[in-house]
Amino acid sequence: MRKILFILIVLVATSSYATERWGIFELEFKGQKVDNPFTEVWLTAEFKYKNRTYQVDGFYDGNQTYKVRFMPEFEGKWTYTIQSNIASAHEKMGSFTCTPPKEKNHGPVSVRDTFHFKYADGVPFYPVGTTAYAWVHQNNELIEETLETLKASTFNKLRMTVMPKYYGRYVSNEPPFYPYEGSIEGGWERNRFNVDFFQHLEKQVGELRKLNVEADVILFHPYDKWGFSKGSIEENLLYLKYLVARLGAYRNVWWNMANEYDLMNKPDSEWEMYFKQLLKCDPYGHLKSIHNGKGWYNHSLPWITHLSVQTPYLEKTQAWRETYNKPVINDEFVYEGNIPFDWGNLTAEETVNRFWILYCRGGYASHGETYVHPENILWWSKGGKLYGESPRRIAFLHQIMKEAPEQGLVPLHTVWNKETYLHKGDEYYLYYYGNSQQASAVLKLSEDKKYAVEVIDAWQMTLKKLEKEYSGTVEIALPQKPYMAIRAKAL
Amino acid sequence: MRKILFILIVLVATSSYATERWGIFELEFKGQKVDNPFTEVWLTAEFKYKNRTYQVDGFYDGNQTYKVRFMPEFEGKWTYTIQSNIASAHEKMGSFTCTPPKEKNHGPVSVRDTFHFKYADGVPFYPVGTTAYAWVHQNNELIEETLETLKASTFNKLRMTVMPKYYGRYVSNEPPFYPYEGSIEGGWERNRFNVDFFQHLEKQVGELRKLNVEADVILFHPYDKWGFSKGSIEENLLYLKYLVARLGAYRNVWWNMANEYDLMNKPDSEWEMYFKQLLKCDPYGHLKSIHNGKGWYNHSLPWITHLSVQTPYLEKTQAWRETYNKPVINDEFVYEGNIPFDWGNLTAEETVNRFWILYCRGGYASHGETYVHPENILWWSKGGKLYGESPRRIAFLHQIMKEAPEQGLVPLHTVWNKETYLHKGDEYYLYYYGNSQQASAVLKLSEDKKYAVEVIDAWQMTLKKLEKEYSGTVEIALPQKPYMAIRAKAL
Repeated sequence: MRKILFILIVLVATSSYATERWGIFELEFKGQKVDNPFTEVWLTAEFKYKNRTYQVDGFYDGNQTYKVRFMPEFEGKWTYTIQSNIASAHEKMGSFTCTPPKEKNHGPVSVRDTFHFKYADGVPFYPVGTTAYAWVHQNNELIEETLETLKASTFNKLRMTVMPKYYGRYVSNEPPFYPYEGSIEGGWERNRFNVDFFQHLEKQVGELRKLNVEADVILFHPYDKWGFSKGSIEENLLYLKYLVARLGAYRNVWWNMANEYDLMNKPDSEWEMYFKQLLKCDPYGHLKSIHNGKGWYNHSLPWITHLSVQTPYLEKTQAWRETYNKPVINDEFVYEGNIPFDWGNLTAEETVNRFWILYCRGGYASHGETYVHPENILWWSKGGKLYGESPRRIAFLHQIMKEAPEQGLVPLHTVWNKETYLHKGDEYYLYYYGNSQQASAVLKLSEDKKYAVEVIDAWQMTLKKLEKEYSGTVEIALPQKPYMAIRAKAL
Repeated sequence: MRKILFILIVLVATSSYATERWGIFELEFKGQKVDNPFTEVWLTAEFKYKNRTYQVDGFYDGNQTYKVRFMPEFEGKWTYTIQSNIASAHEKMGSFTCTPPKEKNHGPVSVRDTFHFKYADGVPFYPVGTTAYAWVHQNNELIEETLETLKASTFNKLRMTVMPKYYGRYVSNEPPFYPYEGSIEGGWERNRFNVDFFQHLEKQVGELRKLNVEADVILFHPYDKWGFSKGSIEENLLYLKYLVARLGAYRNVWWNMANEYDLMNKPDSEWEMYFKQLLKCDPYGHLKSIHNGKGWYNHSLPWITHLSVQTPYLEKTQAWRETYNKPVINDEFVYEGNIPFDWGNLTAEETVNRFWILYCRGGYASHGETYVHPENILWWSKGGKLYGESPRRIAFLHQIMKEAPEQGLVPLHTVWNKETYLHKGDEYYLYYYGNSQQASAVLKLSEDKKYAVEVIDAWQMTLKKLEKEYSGTVEIALPQKPYMAIRAKAL
């Protein structure tokens, strides 16, 4: 019972069109007016490469324009066929060539070796994330500043919400765009998306892509004064389908189902429907997670690719690795800042300490910053500038991560889990001593190998190579202050 | 089949003898030689006060002398009857008068209000303990120094072992006395106690009593090179009976069954026998606990009066209170020091921080100190001097504890358990902010009361009373540094 609604004109797609690997191939159609182009028109595209088939949804982009976006994962010739309730588009076919990726394009990130991440081209990805939930909901000047800050930083993942955020004194401004058509006074049309907003959103995701920053896109969150968090299941499924159709082709997208999902009072069965909607609409299998408040999600469910957790209790990291056999990212261990709420007043020292501890326990960490600001521009929600002392120390740790063996690193710990360390067999050791102040450290190195030993000050960002070569059980002098580490590499 | 072995001469006990309440009443007997006075002679005494009866064992004290020690818990006339396999002592009777306690004698400590402690005279006891495991096994000069250090400190409980301690480089000296007769070369006679040692031990317990320091006497521990930790059940039961006969009348004695009991590889049923031996031999019901290594004891068992735990994970304190309904003392959260082992290199700052956190979570903490020393005299094992910066800050906290309401204090906490605080209804609040650095704190005080508010710096030991009176939800400025607290008292 498909009605013919429009005369479709294929504007761009031709067989001579070329898209780089993990870039975006886009088809654009122009049509006639209908009452609700978001619900009355359906359009899907099947993309084929050899024996692989990907199906993606098209989406309405305003101004009587419909688009299909696709991210090719293999180089060579791709063909496609359109399916639609528009007769002239139905069974429409075409092809394009996928060319090698340009420099700095490593493709989407996925799980590597159970507990870690890699780009699609095999380059390891060590997440050092940060958080600016509502940065896309600020004015252009502030958005530009956020991008400049990110560009100058080591951060390679950004936690951000689709929906605008309300949080009392710190975030009370109205966003430039709302995600739905309608108004605060007149109510929102939950089946009509605000195309201007989504164009704006994907522009920012595109900017992050240029910076090689993964967009950890938070699909739902409870910090809402507009009612956007109160959609029905049907409305939310429509929203997810629309969002994935628009953003799925961006290689730097991760799906984070919710920020503090348990504060939204939805049953697990509802979250399951949303995850299944992602599985259905996203043919690329972007990373998927869900972030907890006081609750705890069953991260063993198959759609969860990695843990995105909120907790200041870092000692649980190894247990979660062992329980779920998935990477663990502590996305919220308390932010660096000085606000009067206990989720946002960590010292820079303790922030850096927690990054090191989480890494040495075999997990990863995310940063956030909440320093009191005269205009309430706190990085954690609005972006802007970073004022803290932790980011450059996190960059120093990021460098240590990149220099570690790519494979075979295992976290170990002593009784107290304080002298946590990573090692790869007897080839590589990274001991971290946290906030203790020992005058020396005992290393149990192999008797059969010689090692270069470096004393690292995680806070001062110094790395001092000792002159001697070491073997067996050795005692290394330390300067009796917190945040020291030792790296030993077999020669 | 009781044999008549000796002619006993009652030397001291007469009806005109007087002992202060919670002091020690002692009977002494002289007898003839036997082969093994520890096993061949038995002697018990029944002490009666009105309708109360206490039974204690006598013990051999060398030089053909047998003693009975008793701590009267009520003022007035007490009578006693001896039971023995010595015919001349059997059914021997006498009496004495119990007089009021002298100043500073508050009696033994017991549990108060489920989670706290008090002396027998009702004065609250707030444990601020320390640890010098093997201090009685050092030379007299060092012992004197330890007592001087304790005298000048706020510490009111000392964790100490009966048996000597061996711990590699830090504790390798032979003790002046061994607990058993015999020798390293020739082996130990596990049914013959070294009376010189036990006289020495109880002298030190008596010195602590003079200082009002509770002796948290550790009955077994694994750090042994002599084989003292390897006794058979029968030998250990004999040891406990002998020890309780000697030390039970000291009002400042607590029984800590073991240090790191789980490292001694005994089944729970064996520990149960030892606890039951204490219950049987000790008529006063001294406090009883057991200290864990990596394991965990079932602290709900009825002989456990309070938890003596070892863990750096302070956030579990409230759960343990709720699970066991007993006081929780974290006797080992890691010691202040700088040794290369992760149980002994905490900064003074973190040591003080942990004391505050544990108190504000409704528990108590014990101190220990492990600074590298040229002669390996580390306070933690040998006593001597304290070098750290935490003890005087612990004294400051101890004063805060004494100034808090005696009853009705309840620990609460926020999501993160970081802004943990104690309060008594809306009368008293003690907020502690740990290692965070907030520029202000929000207090939710009653609208109906006025409060005096004090800003406390737990590290600098300052207490600044704000001039204003406060009501309702108020925001108090803080100096953006760790270790701050706020105390609010209804006026």
